[in-house]
Amino acid sequence: MIRDDKKLLNLLKTAEGQIAGIQKMLVEKKYCIDISNQIMACQAVLGKVNREVLKSHLHGCVTEATGADKEQKLDELSLLLDKLVK
Amino acid sequence: MIRDDKKLLNLLKTAEGQIAGIQKMLVEKKYCIDISNQIMACQAVLGKVNREVLKSHLHGCVTEATGADKEQKLDELSLLLDKLVK
Amino acid sequence: MIRDDKKLLNLLKTAEGQIAGIQKMLVEKKYCIDISNQIMACQAVLGKVNREVLKSHLHGCVTEATGADKEQKLDELSLLLDKLVK
Amino acid sequence: MIRDDKKLLNLLKTAEGQIAGIQKMLVEKKYCIDISNQIMACQAVLGKVNREVLKSHLHGCVTEATGADKEQKLDELSLLLDKLVK
Repeated sequence: MIRDDKKLLNLLKTAEGQIAGIQKMLVEKKYCIDISNQIMACQAVLGKVNREVLKSHLHGCVTEATGADKEQKLDELSLLLDKLVK
Repeated sequence: MIRDDKKLLNLLKTAEGQIAGIQKMLVEKKYCIDISNQIMACQAVLGKVNREVLKSHLHGCVTEATGADKEQKLDELSLLLDKLVK
Repeated sequence: MIRDDKKLLNLLKTAEGQIAGIQKMLVEKKYCIDISNQIMACQAVLGKVNREVLKSHLHGCVTEATGADKEQKLDELSLLLDKLVK
Repeated sequence: MIRDDKKLLNLLKTAEGQIAGIQKMLVEKKYCIDISNQIMACQAVLGKVNREVLKSHLHGCVTEATGADKEQKLDELSLLLDKLVK
């Protein structure tokens, strides 16, 4: 699986635009709930990028790793899951 | 890494006790926020069990898997991360 | 909004059954990923109960509160949001 | 409680810098796990802003609201909790 970096960069551009928008909303004293929703929308876009990065990591780096390298990559995933699982 | 199933079964017993407690709280019309906190405490105990299960999965099943079996286990992890990453 | 406690007690019964099932899966050394999925399913059921409890809290307890009582209930919600917002 | 918008704008500047950093990391093919961690760090900064916004919302807008306005604000909070509670 090849990571579609162009798509990911576009998503990051979107997130960047959202953050600029949130700054503007704060300065213009827009309604709190609207600001909050916009923040969560931006986090969701970042989450989308993260999912793609991790998917290609598993199907690329981890799949190809062997021996001590494989062990290390699985240790890293273990730490990551530890953070993600609530 | 050997999974400490005795510890995990104890945690699940704790979660079971918490759920019995939450049922009692509902019936006795206890304060909503207290019920909500107890629910989240139970979810956290389950999360602890999940983290242990997944850690031992990575350090056991996945580490030992090779070939097509390894591929499949990484596909499963990929699906799992897809659900976990927000 | 009246809380449907019968429905919530049924959901908690479901969660109780799931936890019993998870214990059995552990003892019978079922596949880790299946155990993990079952744990998350149980957490989701508890989350459903929590959402109902909090919804009825807002539309009941908080809506009716006035003065110092209202202040306190909003403080509690503030603490809750602090825990929930990631 | 007065919202410290200067602090929040600084946090948003930090998030903006992080997103620029993530774009650079993608282009320079940096290690997936490092990119993923940076994405989660940025989401955490945004979460911090969101918590502050919602805290001041509760202690400001909602505390002061009365009558139909109060009802509406509690409806909004109810929808928000529905999204946040997992």
